[in-house]
Amino acid sequence: MTVTTPQGFVAAGVHCGIKASGDPDLALVATADRHPVAAAGVFTTNKATAAPVLTTRRHLETTGGYAVAVILNSGNANAATGAAGLADAEQTCQAVADELGCTADDVLVCSTGLIGIPLPIDTLLSGVAPLAAALNDEGGTSAAEAIMTTDTVAKEVVVEGDGFTVGGIAKGAAMLAPNMATMLAVLTTDAEAQPGVLQAALRAGVADSFNAMSVDGCTSTNDTVLLFASGAAGPVDEAALFEAVADACADLARQMVGDAEGATKVVEVRITGAASDEDAQRAARRVADSNLCKCSWYGQDPYWGRIVSEIGSSGAEFDPDKVKVSYGGVTVCRKGVASMHDANALGEVMAAPYIEIVADLGLGKGEGIILTNDLTHAYIDENMGTS
Amino acid sequence: MTVTTPQGFVAAGVHCGIKASGDPDLALVATADRHPVAAAGVFTTNKATAAPVLTTRRHLETTGGYAVAVILNSGNANAATGAAGLADAEQTCQAVADELGCTADDVLVCSTGLIGIPLPIDTLLSGVAPLAAALNDEGGTSAAEAIMTTDTVAKEVVVEGDGFTVGGIAKGAAMLAPNMATMLAVLTTDAEAQPGVLQAALRAGVADSFNAMSVDGCTSTNDTVLLFASGAAGPVDEAALFEAVADACADLARQMVGDAEGATKVVEVRITGAASDEDAQRAARRVADSNLCKCSWYGQDPYWGRIVSEIGSSGAEFDPDKVKVSYGGVTVCRKGVASMHDANALGEVMAAPYIEIVADLGLGKGEGIILTNDLTHAYIDENMGTS
Repeated sequence: MTVTTPQGFVAAGVHCGIKASGDPDLALVATADRHPVAAAGVFTTNKATAAPVLTTRRHLETTGGYAVAVILNSGNANAATGAAGLADAEQTCQAVADELGCTADDVLVCSTGLIGIPLPIDTLLSGVAPLAAALNDEGGTSAAEAIMTTDTVAKEVVVEGDGFTVGGIAKGAAMLAPNMATMLAVLTTDAEAQPGVLQAALRAGVADSFNAMSVDGCTSTNDTVLLFASGAAGPVDEAALFEAVADACADLARQMVGDAEGATKVVEVRITGAASDEDAQRAARRVADSNLCKCSWYGQDPYWGRIVSEIGSSGAEFDPDKVKVSYGGVTVCRKGVASMHDANALGEVMAAPYIEIVADLGLGKGEGIILTNDLTHAYIDENMGTS
Repeated sequence: MTVTTPQGFVAAGVHCGIKASGDPDLALVATADRHPVAAAGVFTTNKATAAPVLTTRRHLETTGGYAVAVILNSGNANAATGAAGLADAEQTCQAVADELGCTADDVLVCSTGLIGIPLPIDTLLSGVAPLAAALNDEGGTSAAEAIMTTDTVAKEVVVEGDGFTVGGIAKGAAMLAPNMATMLAVLTTDAEAQPGVLQAALRAGVADSFNAMSVDGCTSTNDTVLLFASGAAGPVDEAALFEAVADACADLARQMVGDAEGATKVVEVRITGAASDEDAQRAARRVADSNLCKCSWYGQDPYWGRIVSEIGSSGAEFDPDKVKVSYGGVTVCRKGVASMHDANALGEVMAAPYIEIVADLGLGKGEGIILTNDLTHAYIDENMGTS
């Protein structure tokens, strides 16, 4: 049910001391035989790119898309740490390489936590030997727990393909963490695939999952999604691999939004009838990121005027006399004006933990979906301070 | 000290019954002699444009930039109300015209309140005759009070030019209102100016004030800023007029941000050293609209990592190794990494009701400022429901 479910992978999680709480804070996912396998990565577009992201990208370029392992720490993002941060990330990879008998370029690295604080490198390095010693083929859950920050539950997934398996672990949802930020995910598969195919499958899967959700509209300095393919299950149908990777990403994304900080509801914002898919996506994101809409969902208030107003200011092509809005199938606005509806049915929709909002722009065939959540007092509580 | 301070204007505010609370909900600003004067307007860019905005725009086009009066109601936005809403706005103008002895095209109209609810037109019309009867040259404050929604104080301004005066009233700050939305402002001057000059002065003033502030990043369906010039003070220096209008707009914008819903702090986000002014403005807006930054200000937490992360994801040109960040003159980040600073001085800066944040990108000469505020529990309370 986790990143070690596909054949050929081991993992572990330990506490090395970065987190004062004593919680696990260092994780490792590696190939069982310590040999490089095809690997792919998708990274944050934030220009304030964290050192581990730069390091991982460079290693994948150097090897041409192969890797033996990824080490992940929670409690410190190693971001806005300059040249020292880059040296720390490289030293971390070298320490893992020494334990596994590979080169530093074969090791990828992810960090999540506070920005602008030097990585406690000695503390981290002290954990590498015990971490490597703990590697085992049932260690996925332990690794998933060691990358948690403000997550309340560990996030794991397994998708069974035809003759192969995709597994994964993840933490966080975009930059919604207070002290610690970032969305990280590590996926594995026993399918055999070339790095180029793997990269294409991961990019497509991320586009429809992690890139189609929004908690607070923020993009972390450290966001990273990795995919390793051991090849233990042999060659597979390429379309089936794309589908399984996409399903695994979508499942982890739903888990992230559902566990978003302080959220009481998951909300699916679906725009249909837009002039283009791009317009639909833009409008859906605008609604999903609107504090006014987010507050209304928290208050279970079906105030569709805010939905229409946000779409109107999204930049998407829009005709206010054509829009139709519904909550959970109850239509509250037709042709841009209020429409009669069953208030009791609507009340039940708004009270549920999952709300589906559909706005049909009546202009074309463009569609887009963003998965998001409500804005609550608890979000503010968690984000008022870093200590 | 208000919209009736410049020579040649009268105003009034009454309760007609749109607001159940009994508070004033209908305002009128008119020329003292009921003759048309040069007038200019700047409006929302939201494509879900409210009926009164469409009506006011059309009237100004028809007259070529002249008007006698503007009527403003609070408690209902007359937005997402279709053809009926347009007819209601037109009928409102006609009723005012009948009272003042001018044509409906000479009358402008603004509304603020709930979206998607039909305007109670009979209620509104019942207030027009008493409103016109109450017009007087000290009525500005009364008008300012009648356009308030969740504002806690009326917003008024007077700027003295060389031989002329600019006065104004305003309500709200962007779409930060819960039940009722919208930013409205009516400015008057006794300077003599052609409609084209007036329009240019207003557009320039709005760009550096109302369009350089952000409460929650939302753009209302009803935002309107109007400027009337009675000419009673005769011709004036054009540059002086531009400056006085800009000062009046800036003053009202500061009042709005300071009275933003639930806000405990006003925050000035200043970006310097950007590759261009556009980049600086984009980066400043991204920081100002970030919930993570807004929450940290509420918690008085000088977590500059969030500032850097938001700039990095703003789309502006950015080099993480060159950025410098300071709060109230206390520099916390130099060349992209943490810098030594006086923690006590920083604590005092963060505790103050006004915080100036400067981020120097170290790339060029581009500068931009956005005035904003913090995100608080009270904002959520006020925006959870419409009733």
